[in-house]
Amino acid sequence: MKHIHIIGIGTGNPEHVTIQAINAMNAADVIFLPLKGAAKEELAEVRREICERYIARPGIRISEFAVPQRQTAERSYAQSVDTWHGEIAHIYGELIAGLPEDGSGAFLVWGDPSLYDSTIRIVERVRQQVDLDFDYTVVPGITSIQALAASHKIPVNLVGRPIEITTGRRLARKGLQAPTTVVMLDGEQAFAKIDDPNAEIFWGAYLGTKDEIVRSGRLGDVAADILTLRSEARQRHGWIMDIYLLRKGRDFEE
Amino acid sequence: MKHIHIIGIGTGNPEHVTIQAINAMNAADVIFLPLKGAAKEELAEVRREICERYIARPGIRISEFAVPQRQTAERSYAQSVDTWHGEIAHIYGELIAGLPEDGSGAFLVWGDPSLYDSTIRIVERVRQQVDLDFDYTVVPGITSIQALAASHKIPVNLVGRPIEITTGRRLARKGLQAPTTVVMLDGEQAFAKIDDPNAEIFWGAYLGTKDEIVRSGRLGDVAADILTLRSEARQRHGWIMDIYLLRKGRDFEE
Ligand SMILES: C[S@@+](CC[C@H](N)C(=O)[O-])C[C@H]1O[C@@H](n2cnc3c(N)ncnc32)[C@H](O)[C@@H]1O
Ligand SMILES: C[S@@+](CC[C@H](N)C(=O)[O-])C[C@H]1O[C@@H](n2cnc3c(N)ncnc32)[C@H](O)[C@@H]1O
Repeated sequence: MKHIHIIGIGTGNPEHVTIQAINAMNAADVIFLPLKGAAKEELAEVRREICERYIARPGIRISEFAVPQRQTAERSYAQSVDTWHGEIAHIYGELIAGLPEDGSGAFLVWGDPSLYDSTIRIVERVRQQVDLDFDYTVVPGITSIQALAASHKIPVNLVGRPIEITTGRRLARKGLQAPTTVVMLDGEQAFAKIDDPNAEIFWGAYLGTKDEIVRSGRLGDVAADILTLRSEARQRHGWIMDIYLLRKGRDFEE
Repeated sequence: MKHIHIIGIGTGNPEHVTIQAINAMNAADVIFLPLKGAAKEELAEVRREICERYIARPGIRISEFAVPQRQTAERSYAQSVDTWHGEIAHIYGELIAGLPEDGSGAFLVWGDPSLYDSTIRIVERVRQQVDLDFDYTVVPGITSIQALAASHKIPVNLVGRPIEITTGRRLARKGLQAPTTVVMLDGEQAFAKIDDPNAEIFWGAYLGTKDEIVRSGRLGDVAADILTLRSEARQRHGWIMDIYLLRKGRDFEE
């Protein structure tokens, strides 16, 4: 049977890679490398560097493929994601079909495959829809949440207290719900929209890369600075990936 | 100045260790290994094996130290934790004071240092309370949440939806609050107490080790099995570490 490795590679620092990930990469016949357009060329570079540093077994083939863009016009978010996953599933199906008999392929996933990433979901979809006999395993990787906490040298949770992980869109709608809230996928800088000037923010962009930027402080004091810093960095690089943690502090009672 | 590395080592599988962690271990003069009593001897074994496999630089010293038990009688949870951290801070202070001038030490932390772990908090306390000049850095590690998701081959979040990470104690009190709830530190098997038979559970114990056990299914169908399995495993080993993810499914509307 063919085998697929879904491998978490961490979030930009090639040293985030685990021994398990290195072994899985070296067990594959083909490594599939997604290309996500010119703006994200730097992310493709990180993946290539990881392959160069850690692939030791000769004969492993690297196969780059273009990832389609998600279309958002005239459809709901759920429909848009579903159609997009369908297109990617089609590509994955062809990549897997092209593997040698009983061969194995590896998808390198940014961060950890279980966190706001659809590789597992899409591979499962291929398995259910396409007439292809294969199985797959998942190798965990360092997430951007952990990279953020390590750079700020902070625990994510307060002692014995819960953590919420959410999106910018939902933070803007709901506000802070937990003593610790981690916000990802924020295209609208929701931290600057909520009315919690006394919350503490721990923000980071391009974590793990040579361009890493971090800032922290009382939200009321630093929100404007972070907005400026973020928009300048985004313009300079042509893209940005950022994440932040908000803390209501020890006074927040449930 | 002296330097401390706080290094996440993953949750039982020595291959969870990252290249960054290996480099940090090899940069240290002394590796501090906590001993937590006979029942948890197997956890100390994992740490020793990691040192054996990955320490390549000669002359690195391994220093084992006993971690005091937390006293719970006649005090609140917060007081009990505070006193306990104070005791550990005292020990850390001595370990750090004993480092060679400008030398460096490494604490190996189970999983990731930012998730329900107090090493960062305690090292920070030493720095503020003790007259010792040192700085420290944090190296992220694979968490038990990621080990759980990888073994079950599932994404933690539903597309675009939030995640809650909480304790058994709080789940028993509050019930399910989010489409995905991850429960750690559960000494009371709170999953069997909540009234959500249609939720799905993904459970795992001793994740990453050779004794790993996983189970999943509709909570109403598998809760009793997991209770039995857990209590048998706990008796056999003398200790258990388990974690689970509960999913309200796609019908859960906020
Ligand atoms: C599609 S999600 C993928 C998350 C990834 N699977 C992980 O484990 O971190 C992308 C989001 O992750 C966060 N992110 C990923 N890498 C990052 C980095 N290097 N620096 C800052 N944020 C990052 C950002 O919030 C971004 O919007
Ligand atoms: C004090 S917390 C430490 C968590 C750790 N820092 C991490 O990143 O996973 C201990 C809790 O983590 C979970 N845990 C840690 N290692 C585990 C393992 N190998 N298998 C199952 N659960 C584990 C359990 O819920 C346990 O009660």
